[in-house]
Amino acid sequence: MRPHHDGSELYVSDPAPALGDTVAVFVRVPRGTGVSRVHMRWVRDGEPVFTSAAVDRRGPGGDTWWRAELPVHNPVTSYRFLLGTTRGVRWLTGMGLTTHDVPDATDFRLVAHPPPPSWARDAVVYQIFPDRYARSAARELPAWAVGADWDDPVVRGPDTLRTLYGGDLDGIARHLDHVTGLGADTVYLTPFFPARSNHRYDATTFDHVDPLLGGDGALERLSAAARDRGLRLLGDLTTNHTGASHDWFPDDDLYYRRDDGGYESWLGVADLPKLNWGSAELRRRFRAVVQHWLAEPYALSGWRVDVANMTARHGADDRTHEVAAMLRRAVLDVRPDGLLIAEHAHDAGGDLDRDGWHGTMNYSGFTRPVWSWLRADDLPFDGFLGVPERMPRAGAEAVAATMTAFAAQMSWRSWTTSWQLLGSHDTARIRTVVGSRERHEVAAGLLFTLPGTPMVFAGDELGLTGANNEEARVPMRWDAPVLGCYPELIALRRSSPALSRGGLRWVHADGDSLVFLRESAAQSVLVLARRSPGRPLALAGLAPGASWENLYGGAKPLHTEPDGSTAIDGYGPAVQVWALNG
Amino acid sequence: MRPHHDGSELYVSDPAPALGDTVAVFVRVPRGTGVSRVHMRWVRDGEPVFTSAAVDRRGPGGDTWWRAELPVHNPVTSYRFLLGTTRGVRWLTGMGLTTHDVPDATDFRLVAHPPPPSWARDAVVYQIFPDRYARSAARELPAWAVGADWDDPVVRGPDTLRTLYGGDLDGIARHLDHVTGLGADTVYLTPFFPARSNHRYDATTFDHVDPLLGGDGALERLSAAARDRGLRLLGDLTTNHTGASHDWFPDDDLYYRRDDGGYESWLGVADLPKLNWGSAELRRRFRAVVQHWLAEPYALSGWRVDVANMTARHGADDRTHEVAAMLRRAVLDVRPDGLLIAEHAHDAGGDLDRDGWHGTMNYSGFTRPVWSWLRADDLPFDGFLGVPERMPRAGAEAVAATMTAFAAQMSWRSWTTSWQLLGSHDTARIRTVVGSRERHEVAAGLLFTLPGTPMVFAGDELGLTGANNEEARVPMRWDAPVLGCYPELIALRRSSPALSRGGLRWVHADGDSLVFLRESAAQSVLVLARRSPGRPLALAGLAPGASWENLYGGAKPLHTEPDGSTAIDGYGPAVQVWALNG
Repeated sequence: MRPHHDGSELYVSDPAPALGDTVAVFVRVPRGTGVSRVHMRWVRDGEPVFTSAAVDRRGPGGDTWWRAELPVHNPVTSYRFLLGTTRGVRWLTGMGLTTHDVPDATDFRLVAHPPPPSWARDAVVYQIFPDRYARSAARELPAWAVGADWDDPVVRGPDTLRTLYGGDLDGIARHLDHVTGLGADTVYLTPFFPARSNHRYDATTFDHVDPLLGGDGALERLSAAARDRGLRLLGDLTTNHTGASHDWFPDDDLYYRRDDGGYESWLGVADLPKLNWGSAELRRRFRAVVQHWLAEPYALSGWRVDVANMTARHGADDRTHEVAAMLRRAVLDVRPDGLLIAEHAHDAGGDLDRDGWHGTMNYSGFTRPVWSWLRADDLPFDGFLGVPERMPRAGAEAVAATMTAFAAQMSWRSWTTSWQLLGSHDTARIRTVVGSRERHEVAAGLLFTLPGTPMVFAGDELGLTGANNEEARVPMRWDAPVLGCYPELIALRRSSPALSRGGLRWVHADGDSLVFLRESAAQSVLVLARRSPGRPLALAGLAPGASWENLYGGAKPLHTEPDGSTAIDGYGPAVQVWALNG
Repeated sequence: MRPHHDGSELYVSDPAPALGDTVAVFVRVPRGTGVSRVHMRWVRDGEPVFTSAAVDRRGPGGDTWWRAELPVHNPVTSYRFLLGTTRGVRWLTGMGLTTHDVPDATDFRLVAHPPPPSWARDAVVYQIFPDRYARSAARELPAWAVGADWDDPVVRGPDTLRTLYGGDLDGIARHLDHVTGLGADTVYLTPFFPARSNHRYDATTFDHVDPLLGGDGALERLSAAARDRGLRLLGDLTTNHTGASHDWFPDDDLYYRRDDGGYESWLGVADLPKLNWGSAELRRRFRAVVQHWLAEPYALSGWRVDVANMTARHGADDRTHEVAAMLRRAVLDVRPDGLLIAEHAHDAGGDLDRDGWHGTMNYSGFTRPVWSWLRADDLPFDGFLGVPERMPRAGAEAVAATMTAFAAQMSWRSWTTSWQLLGSHDTARIRTVVGSRERHEVAAGLLFTLPGTPMVFAGDELGLTGANNEEARVPMRWDAPVLGCYPELIALRRSSPALSRGGLRWVHADGDSLVFLRESAAQSVLVLARRSPGRPLALAGLAPGASWENLYGGAKPLHTEPDGSTAIDGYGPAVQVWALNG
């Protein structure tokens, strides 16, 4: 084990400080690392300042905990540590230990902006694509639509986006026991506004719920049913574009019109004209929309923001941070515990910690590395989440390195409030990616044991398949059994302070095996993920003499020898979770 | 050699494009790397877009040059490459090749903001601290000052900042032949405004030149004398603070006043009250100051901005980018070829490429790694440029890694316009750091052969010593001989298109030896730096059959074998520079 710090409760005394506060930050230094001095470097008004850390205590297993006092002087305070060792000095940043100087970009960050709602940190999110979840009634279809029977396969073709299976909000309401049975506590609905497609990202208005989904009344009923079961509801707002049939579209000032009489649109799709956030009127209208659906009787708990990465960016215009902050204020003004999550499929680091988006959908720092590690030998699709090459097959060391690299671009708070996902309505299904139930369970194991808010795309818990985003939008199979690992892992996560709020230390990452610790003040949990059977492992550096009770996966208890080594058998594919006794 | 891209002319068809242009970007792929596909990923309005690259040509030595077309859609376009190889896919970013996903932060950047002046890219800057350069006349000292004779040693003590040696601008004017003899073409003067210290960063006014330096007339004479010799002059502006005796200080709105009647100041130094850039009046006044000294008859070519990293940052306020952009506009409105360089002693990446500072003083990405590599065994000082640990001793691999890591945080343009320096009035002297003339010459070799604008602190060319910033401000020794390597290396750099404008490829970096290529369309140059004698090297991957003529250092010509290997003897400490023949 190496010296460690992260933003979790063991290492930061206050994760939500105010300007003017002082926060204690800690570095955990294992025995044998030769560290005799620890300094903290923090940046005050743009200038690095060094402060000495002092030994706070010795922990079990011989770890030394160093403590430094970090003044909260700026809204985002970046900090890092300098360790004096017998072998020279080392920097400790979000990238871990380095022997040479590294830029500030991966420094730890303490954020004094208002924190994300605490419920979001412990949430398990269940994503529902309304047209494909459940239908409560037969409805007459509009002229643009093509009807489908619930059991019809989803196929790519000219009618793909116009094909309605007829799921609706009352259908969802009837199946909320499925959600609570799974253990999720938050339902994220993709758009419910009227549109001319089944995905509804081409809204024609933000003023009412699509009558095909049951209208405003159905959302009110769904909201009430959710509340009865202790479930929260999140909506989905397109802030980058609307449909070309939107009732705002005639207003030239709200969109990017071109000199040739045309208009800018999302990736050149004419149906999706791009909104111009230079317009004060647009901001006024969006503020009203954001707040309308958060208020009673709909009472959404927040929004997922579609195409947040492009929102308010166009050529020389870049108002994204300003707009994100405005939307957050709009949310918090009516719903102090509201949540705002940004879609962002590459690197959201530059857009977080700015008093705007609370977190992101972490495709880059979670979905991609997990897919690469667990991918099937033969994939029924080309490309890799937009990358025009076959998905690479990576070892566990690449998973850890990728997750670390992306997490280091943001505060711990933004990382853990971000949604970790194995897939969504925009990707292939995880079952198809990994190709087997066993590896699907390993993927689910990572989803529910790593930091971040787990998001489950409805149907993944049934093992539904799909080789692309369209096929992934397959209607729910209400006759299919739930994979037992989903409710079990969700229950484990929700009952485990270490899994929901703990820090993260990588213990071992090599080829087929990934081992990490999740540790909170109340609990220490050790997680092993293996993608295939392999050699037994001899982990080094755990607390000597410790015993570990298995919480998930069925393996035997573990015992750490007096020298800190811990033997684990080679069984796999598997996820095993143990908790430290005592 | 590995696949390569950087922002230099071999790889980017237009380094100063306008919005709406399309720029060709190239990847150079050596033989044997197994690359069969190259894609470019660029970010358009926040969304990654992939474009295929095509083979453009085969170069000498068997390199394949791939070409992609990059639309200039945003003011800063980040881009990277994805290489399909026989061993899997690789990303190519500013950090080089990686086998796993990496965040966007180190993507290459193409900048469409107006470019830095072209003269700055080829400049060699000579820094003069006016009180210690040369004096033209005896002057009566003000009450706050303590006089010193030119030969008196500089000592740290209560009178340090008040000790005047009496250098002045006419003294500088008399020694401009020294500057031209060295080969520098740009003189950067630390502040010439009246103050109450010898460093003059505590200005009492920005309206006239300190009478102790000869007043406005002396600057006019110096400017004319510089112009006669083809030299440019740069000033030094404190935008973070003024002296407490500044004629603006009575105006409450221009500074950060505290409720207790006090005021904020630079690092708590009461003499240096911090300016409040929330004030429109402050911006108006600074615009006038900036422009006054750029206009005739003073005709400065630009400004170095003191404490740029803290300027306009205070608690919840962060107006730095806005202020930098305002200052740049102020410069360019009166001097379209004006330059604006930011002092920034840690990581300036986040503050560059924003239409503000053209570049920075690159302590982090140049001074620190060079010092660490070449440091003397025994150092007469503690700390390391503000870091509270003894300076580490690093190998050449750490030098390359550190330089790459910091350069990857900014565009090629910002990096090469930034000042590389071995020291300044704020640091120990390079001779003291490295401890010997031989290693001083190695340091100078790196200064003048690596990318970036070399800046020489006056006196370094004489081998002056000083173990801290005060001692470093030792008066010039006009009887001391110039180290021959300075004029020779400067002449070499100024005559070499590869050294002044070429790209950078690391060839070898290990312990005592650092080898790199600088390549432009017109010339390829190979540089070897060794900090001590060592084993002969067998470089791999150079163009087979090539012959290399020695341009500096006196080594024999090199010959590259048909297999690409090139033998170099183990002589050191040394810098050797060869040019590719033909």
